Amino acid sequence: MRVDVLTLFPEMFEGVFNASILGKAKDKGIVDLQAINFRDYSNNKHNTVDDYPYGGGGGMVLKAEPVFMAVEDLMAAVPQGKPPRIILMCPQGETFTQRKAEELSQEEHIVLICGHYEGYDERIREHLVTDELSIGDYVLTGGEIPAMTVIDSVVRLLPGVLGNESSAVTDSYSTGLLEYPHYTRPAVFRDWEVPEVLISGHHSRIDAWRREQSLLRTFNRRPDLLEKAELTPKERKWLASLSKEEQ
Amino acid sequence: MRVDVLTLFPEMFEGVFNASILGKAKDKGIVDLQAINFRDYSNNKHNTVDDYPYGGGGGMVLKAEPVFMAVEDLMAAVPQGKPPRIILMCPQGETFTQRKAEELSQEEHIVLICGHYEGYDERIREHLVTDELSIGDYVLTGGEIPAMTVIDSVVRLLPGVLGNESSAVTDSYSTGLLEYPHYTRPAVFRDWEVPEVLISGHHSRIDAWRREQSLLRTFNRRPDLLEKAELTPKERKWLASLSKEEQ
Repeated sequence: MRVDVLTLFPEMFEGVFNASILGKAKDKGIVDLQAINFRDYSNNKHNTVDDYPYGGGGGMVLKAEPVFMAVEDLMAAVPQGKPPRIILMCPQGETFTQRKAEELSQEEHIVLICGHYEGYDERIREHLVTDELSIGDYVLTGGEIPAMTVIDSVVRLLPGVLGNESSAVTDSYSTGLLEYPHYTRPAVFRDWEVPEVLISGHHSRIDAWRREQSLLRTFNRRPDLLEKAELTPKERKWLASLSKEEQ
Repeated sequence: MRVDVLTLFPEMFEGVFNASILGKAKDKGIVDLQAINFRDYSNNKHNTVDDYPYGGGGGMVLKAEPVFMAVEDLMAAVPQGKPPRIILMCPQGETFTQRKAEELSQEEHIVLICGHYEGYDERIREHLVTDELSIGDYVLTGGEIPAMTVIDSVVRLLPGVLGNESSAVTDSYSTGLLEYPHYTRPAVFRDWEVPEVLISGHHSRIDAWRREQSLLRTFNRRPDLLEKAELTPKERKWLASLSKEEQ
């Protein structure tokens, strides 16, 4: 997979692209990660890429031309094949989810466009991009950290990226329930003990405890996830009885 | 404000802490940003900070001790005052929102703890942290990018961080509606014209157009936001008529 990020701050990506899982995926040749400064596509001597908004008001607006030019240059450089997904990181976009990460992990080439406090000229949205994504309902100074979020979640899904040691972890959101509590040594840390069942050696009791904890945690913290989770009729009945107790 | 991040990958934060708004806020002395490697608090000769889970199963679990030691060392170094908020970045946490960013921007000191594919020993959750945060419903390889997200959204709210040029931008999520479309020069780019109203010079027509576009975009993309937004009775009526047309 090839991933290109168009940004005015390519230096923000260096640490993230070279560390940990992303760095390893790059070294193994599974993914090619590039951060490109689209200021290089400015068509004026001051190298500006933004301008005042038509109609007045505060804030600056990213011009269409340098963004179009940067994307077209990229597409010309890539051998023919499936056209890339061109993703605009913006607060107005579709909320990013694990399902979207899975969808994007099937692509050969994705391009992410990051604005930075300015708005985007609407013609970028209308005539250039294939997707608009937001990572959540909060305001950030730019699209760079959201782009890192999307890249990290997509690249970890590519075959060969996660070793056995980590892919074996039961992910929250993959199972549809929040994870049960984990404990490791020491068995007693500052008087706080590991639950006895976990050191019992009874595998069926351990499995039952973990499932119960997972259900309880999801019930208490994210009841919205329970609707879509796969539960047995008995489990649904138990959670319904807890809801009644609460009332 | 002081912000400390406990991580096994401090190098991931270098680019982000030194660029753009965060870099400027640091240079102006508004915020002190540190990334601390809690591997330095390992109590064994191999410098490991994780271990196998009690009860079996795949994956590793971050040990309680190095995380407790790192936090306690930090707290000892900070002159007495309000105790810090100690935030665990994890998928089981409360979903981060703009409201939470505003709340955290009132603090003097926040500490963010980032795990990395492993789970956390439950005693960290129960006896050390004050908050657990998730930035959205997707799986990432670690808490580092989520921590950057929280830091960026909190620091931009601190007084003196945003200059006039950027704070003047009407943020989506601050007004409760998605932003209206922006346009900048040229007026015609590849045959695509700027809407005529924006070059009309009629300020009241421009304001009305922008409000309408903002309402329409929110209605089409994020109808869930309309409930909490401040709308006039006439606007509510208009949107209700659009819903009927759709059916």
